[in-house]
Amino acid sequence: MLMSDRPPMRSGGIISKYGDYLPEIDPAAAVTLGEGQTPLVEARAVSEAVAAGVCVYLKCEGLNPTGSFKDRGMAFAVSRAREAGYRVAMCASTGNTAASAAAYCARAGMRCVVVIPEAAIAAGKLAQAVAHGAVVVAVRGNFDQALAIVRDMVERHRIALLNSLNPDRIEGQKTAAFEVCDQLGGRAPDHLAIPVGNAGNITAYWKGFREYKEQGKVSSMPIMLGFQAAGAAPIVVGHPIERPETVATAIRIGNPASWAKAVAARDESGGLVESVTDEEILDACRLLAAREGVLVEPASAASVAGVLKLARRGYFRERSGASRRQDAVIVCVLTGHGLKDPDAMMRLGSGPLVAEADTASVEATLVAAGTPLDGR
Amino acid sequence: MLMSDRPPMRSGGIISKYGDYLPEIDPAAAVTLGEGQTPLVEARAVSEAVAAGVCVYLKCEGLNPTGSFKDRGMAFAVSRAREAGYRVAMCASTGNTAASAAAYCARAGMRCVVVIPEAAIAAGKLAQAVAHGAVVVAVRGNFDQALAIVRDMVERHRIALLNSLNPDRIEGQKTAAFEVCDQLGGRAPDHLAIPVGNAGNITAYWKGFREYKEQGKVSSMPIMLGFQAAGAAPIVVGHPIERPETVATAIRIGNPASWAKAVAARDESGGLVESVTDEEILDACRLLAAREGVLVEPASAASVAGVLKLARRGYFRERSGASRRQDAVIVCVLTGHGLKDPDAMMRLGSGPLVAEADTASVEATLVAAGTPLDGR
Repeated sequence: MLMSDRPPMRSGGIISKYGDYLPEIDPAAAVTLGEGQTPLVEARAVSEAVAAGVCVYLKCEGLNPTGSFKDRGMAFAVSRAREAGYRVAMCASTGNTAASAAAYCARAGMRCVVVIPEAAIAAGKLAQAVAHGAVVVAVRGNFDQALAIVRDMVERHRIALLNSLNPDRIEGQKTAAFEVCDQLGGRAPDHLAIPVGNAGNITAYWKGFREYKEQGKVSSMPIMLGFQAAGAAPIVVGHPIERPETVATAIRIGNPASWAKAVAARDESGGLVESVTDEEILDACRLLAAREGVLVEPASAASVAGVLKLARRGYFRERSGASRRQDAVIVCVLTGHGLKDPDAMMRLGSGPLVAEADTASVEATLVAAGTPLDGR
Repeated sequence: MLMSDRPPMRSGGIISKYGDYLPEIDPAAAVTLGEGQTPLVEARAVSEAVAAGVCVYLKCEGLNPTGSFKDRGMAFAVSRAREAGYRVAMCASTGNTAASAAAYCARAGMRCVVVIPEAAIAAGKLAQAVAHGAVVVAVRGNFDQALAIVRDMVERHRIALLNSLNPDRIEGQKTAAFEVCDQLGGRAPDHLAIPVGNAGNITAYWKGFREYKEQGKVSSMPIMLGFQAAGAAPIVVGHPIERPETVATAIRIGNPASWAKAVAARDESGGLVESVTDEEILDACRLLAAREGVLVEPASAASVAGVLKLARRGYFRERSGASRRQDAVIVCVLTGHGLKDPDAMMRLGSGPLVAEADTASVEATLVAAGTPLDGR
């Protein structure tokens, strides 16, 4: 199919864009769905809520092909697994990894098996894995148990591991840090706020920022601000959580695989890993949806909830005084699209009003509901 | 907020990218969520199914901020409404327009009222409109009745109309045609296949291709191939359908507002508007999900279903013989993400297997389900 008269494509994904910074791969093995190049949008309402002299941007990773940040690392991991001749791949997942693995394996012509905790993943994500033809096994346990089973099975069979324990996942994922710097015009943000679940993402961003600094692409690195959900905050409390609980199902993880690396990212950057409550997470979701026009699954909003929490205790005010020549730049990583979790989204607002199909009925219904139509 | 020391943004959306081709607008009024710049990905499985000498690409418009193509036109229409001082906006919708209008109005600080046909829109879309704080009115009727009510109300109140009858919607939407040409390296595709519901999208693409040709950006224009669902195919049968029915809820429209313009696009391009059955639509959905790794809501798959149908009767073979110097390029527009309609996606595959949370149980469950783990 690689004919010389084929028109040039501009949607090559992370391998074609950042291949120089990735381990070598045969281009013929590369699989892409056009991941990456997600928008970095200004968040005026969040900025105003944080502090004067601060500019908050949202890195909208939910606009990757399967609706979450996982696609960057999955593109590279599946490409390398295909290059190595694997025919079957496997992962444990709270949902987003499953959806991404299922999609990329479908495109690569590989069989995909995903192990999920029963009854604890969002509806959209399960539908994705199923529709892409993955074999989905729901186990009567939590994510950490699912991951242990998968690690066991990839040792016993010739199966590619697609969890972020696979270093190729981290390699692909680090391109998000490159992209943030490129979108900011060749500089790193001052702070990078990010949800922390299994801790592969914070690990990958920090690796990306370090490498861009080493390569001379940027002159500084951000302070890393990681946020776990209060009911699933093992790094914050300092020990594994046996029964993690949170509305943010994507980060409902009690024993993160990349725990030590997250701690290293925190300490090397002079940052922190803290927790936010489910209420703070849903408040941040609502603020993003109602004021910024950005819909995210609950886990994503942990980054914004965390920044707002730090702001309330003056964290950024101390760091962005009048002495600074320019606004402090905070980038909040939004990991997954709100469409992943329609049930949680419905709870952010009020359900539909019902009316007969004529103008008078609709007007009367709106008036009865207290909706001004004259712009007041 | 527009400080001169603000870092440059690279996610400006359609107005910053294609402003030279749009009606003038005050940049301060412009609203963007980073719409546009969606991937154009090669579809090898579809290409093989179509004909030798044909290369099919997928324009993944479901990767716009709210998960559908509507965001391009909505970005421009809401920006212009804000510039004109509107405080309230309104639209009728089968779901995608509502989600997009709700998001952009939230970002613009405008009140949004959406009128939807009761019980006939996909779960994800309703959740979006609700979460973004729109006032949603479900009427006991179909889309065409909802649109009539909205047209009535915007005449009686100072409310901005956000349906594609608003020419600003078409202006913003036409940028998708520009982008396809740019992504193909400065040429138009030979064929552009597109789902047809209210017919605003086919109208906008044709306008975009014509303008790019007039400006000398491309040297040819595509043959336009429009596809309606068989149960909602008024343009194909030549009269309005009073009770449109199809699994493809996004194009469940019996009396398209842009009917005449769709016919003009068809005739001026030497193309066609035909229908595809729900079964053909779902088969195309399944092919895209299982082989291309691309998940779309049912309406989107009408473009691919239509191309496969034309291929079966030799339509492309006649047009791509050995005499051509290069492959014929077909671009299929995929209008909305599969996450918009999780219920339809679940039906594309098999539900989860269930096992205890230990390796032996998972292995036994996979073996019992006939899933080989050794790569056969």
